[in-house]
Amino acid sequence: METSSKQLRIGLAGLGNVGSGVYKNLLRNRDILLERTGVHLQVAKIAVRDPDRKRDVEVPPEMLTADWQELISDPQIDIIVELIGEGEEAFALITAALKAGKAVVTGNKAVLAKHGKQLVELSEQQNTPLYCEAAVAGGIPIIKAVREALIGNRIDSIYGIINGTSNYILTRMTTAGISFSDALQEAREKGFAEADPTLDINGWDAGHKAIILGWISYGRWLKPEEISVAGIENVSSEDVAFANSLGYEIKLLGVIRQGKDDERIEVRVAPSLIPRTHILSSVDGVFNAVAVHGNVVGETLFYGSGAGQDATSSAVISDLADAAENLMNDVGCTGFVPHGDYGEALPVEETLSQYYLRLSVVDEPGVLAQISSITGQNGIGILSVIQPEPKEPSEYIPLVLLLHDAPYGTVRSALEAVLALSSVGSEHTLLRVETLER
Amino acid sequence: METSSKQLRIGLAGLGNVGSGVYKNLLRNRDILLERTGVHLQVAKIAVRDPDRKRDVEVPPEMLTADWQELISDPQIDIIVELIGEGEEAFALITAALKAGKAVVTGNKAVLAKHGKQLVELSEQQNTPLYCEAAVAGGIPIIKAVREALIGNRIDSIYGIINGTSNYILTRMTTAGISFSDALQEAREKGFAEADPTLDINGWDAGHKAIILGWISYGRWLKPEEISVAGIENVSSEDVAFANSLGYEIKLLGVIRQGKDDERIEVRVAPSLIPRTHILSSVDGVFNAVAVHGNVVGETLFYGSGAGQDATSSAVISDLADAAENLMNDVGCTGFVPHGDYGEALPVEETLSQYYLRLSVVDEPGVLAQISSITGQNGIGILSVIQPEPKEPSEYIPLVLLLHDAPYGTVRSALEAVLALSSVGSEHTLLRVETLER
Repeated sequence: METSSKQLRIGLAGLGNVGSGVYKNLLRNRDILLERTGVHLQVAKIAVRDPDRKRDVEVPPEMLTADWQELISDPQIDIIVELIGEGEEAFALITAALKAGKAVVTGNKAVLAKHGKQLVELSEQQNTPLYCEAAVAGGIPIIKAVREALIGNRIDSIYGIINGTSNYILTRMTTAGISFSDALQEAREKGFAEADPTLDINGWDAGHKAIILGWISYGRWLKPEEISVAGIENVSSEDVAFANSLGYEIKLLGVIRQGKDDERIEVRVAPSLIPRTHILSSVDGVFNAVAVHGNVVGETLFYGSGAGQDATSSAVISDLADAAENLMNDVGCTGFVPHGDYGEALPVEETLSQYYLRLSVVDEPGVLAQISSITGQNGIGILSVIQPEPKEPSEYIPLVLLLHDAPYGTVRSALEAVLALSSVGSEHTLLRVETLER
Repeated sequence: METSSKQLRIGLAGLGNVGSGVYKNLLRNRDILLERTGVHLQVAKIAVRDPDRKRDVEVPPEMLTADWQELISDPQIDIIVELIGEGEEAFALITAALKAGKAVVTGNKAVLAKHGKQLVELSEQQNTPLYCEAAVAGGIPIIKAVREALIGNRIDSIYGIINGTSNYILTRMTTAGISFSDALQEAREKGFAEADPTLDINGWDAGHKAIILGWISYGRWLKPEEISVAGIENVSSEDVAFANSLGYEIKLLGVIRQGKDDERIEVRVAPSLIPRTHILSSVDGVFNAVAVHGNVVGETLFYGSGAGQDATSSAVISDLADAAENLMNDVGCTGFVPHGDYGEALPVEETLSQYYLRLSVVDEPGVLAQISSITGQNGIGILSVIQPEPKEPSEYIPLVLLLHDAPYGTVRSALEAVLALSSVGSEHTLLRVETLER
């Protein structure tokens, strides 16, 4: 076979969880990869922090180096796969690789969220492609789907469950009725939470992915300070139960969208109520899913494992195949340019949604009238009110309101006024309700 | 801008529902398409049966011709989009286009299911690409997902809800408790069923798509006579209700898979029970979804509109962009070759699944013993038995069995022996139960 002699040499930076998966699965499926791409995709050199460490995968020791500069300076290496994790070192490595004219595949969402604009500009200047399918939603090919498969669409909205740890915790709070901390403990025991789960729990892992999806959809790298991010640490079992009884599931949702008339771009992450009638509400456990609405295709959804060694390496290998196709055909940067820059960031105060508001109120007549007078003055409509029977006599009883679409800033200031009422206690929860209609 | 002068001229064959959508949406999103592909994708000529017919889209009359040969012979036309519907004429048209060295985009599942092998071979000989994203599952980019995004995976299985009309009917039978014929009538009134819905109802529309998915996954074009296809016309409200009470939904399911040890390929379509715990069971109404299990990525699912003018034209436009990229870079056939040929067809008699069997039996002791003696002799285990309370006294009462994994042929012959029992009536339903485990 004419093509069988072609080979592309890969410099792999990082041999942790995902790096090991890439090494292992490239070998495991080498036959089909050769057949489908016409190229031997061969790992030639691997940069690791400590070459002497014992690892899960068996790697020829002569392949290992402690110095990633060796991958860059080796003229035989065609493609760099960057999987060393967060940090400025990854930024330096990707920069050096692109400057050396080597195609880069990265799974590093933190680096892209921080330095994406610079790296993409450098990639274009150097006419050297940069791929990042593994950076968002693990094995789900959402980057390729939005950039290539939905190329004929303006993206109206993306709603994504893009953090598996949070989704596992919320699912267990819903199905087993356990508390946030018990569910987090369980996630740790099952290996679904990192030793330090801070970025999962506080929403910023999803935030980094949302920034990348914002770029893919609207051509603009929003800065971390331009987006609004909240995590699931304050979601209570009580709120989960109320949401369920109202026909909703609570999910940590990334929202990336653009108004029809207001062309500013909204990128935010928050625990949100979504209707049970929408398929996104059926995404349980560690799975991720991304619902994309395009102005031609209508509603679509992409579902799969959002993390894990194997699922994520499937995304890396897909990028390697794309890189191989480009390199073999000598076409430089991929033909799919980043979509255009469509607008400014919409400040979070101006973002619209419905809301779930749980208050604790004194059980006496006239409280609801006081509250609805404040919401009314602020132009916020009330969709429904639930006053659940209190379980035991107490000074405060819960009052749950569903509020009409309103700007977040208006709702926040109305809430402050409500909390200042003498009949309203300080304990409360304000969550978004996303109807997912577009 | 250097690229702005480049243009690719499209010859559009067919201006029906999907053809009009392609024309309309190429104009609607021309700005983003130019920006993303660097090329003007311009419809230059349109072949229609009757140029004088009044149409939904406004098309310059000088663009129309009644003779599709004009599209082929016009040296200025770079790409042919074939959307004339079923039939040998489409085969002749695609063949002529490839021979003339023009890239082809088609949405014609029937022609591919019948002549796919020949057409793909011709495309390779001519080094001229043939695209068919719109032929399977409308706006869901399942062809690109399997061929490109999951390129590093052996495909373990594909389970697809790939006929919107059937899914609408089954959803309404489930949620509204109405009969098959009432649900079909409703689908017609809502425009979700064609004037002649035969191919939707008898399963062959899904069968054609399953053949294409078999090729995409396993590199082999199975012949229509090598696959097993059943439609939904015999699914009763009673079976839907029993299935629901057992924790299942009935869906018309396309199954494309390959054994781990037995490397033969299974392609079949049948109404099947799927567990409510699987996200595929949440796919309702006219939506389609395709669950793909890859040996690296694990479980994935792709969801969206499986039909309709706009959704399907999103798929055509994605193919046009891929064709444009190939043409501009002068790389001939796409770098992604069809996946290799991995095995023979597995005869339907040998295919394994669990089963739902509803019998009508005389209400007397010993009937179940007679039946389970027959299943036992055939090596078929019984998972559970339900004998619902009869609504009114009658000669026969229903008996529902769930059967363990067994070859279809064995189950068929055991069923014949059961039906020959004097205590068993002729009315019965045998449906597959798919656990979707891999």
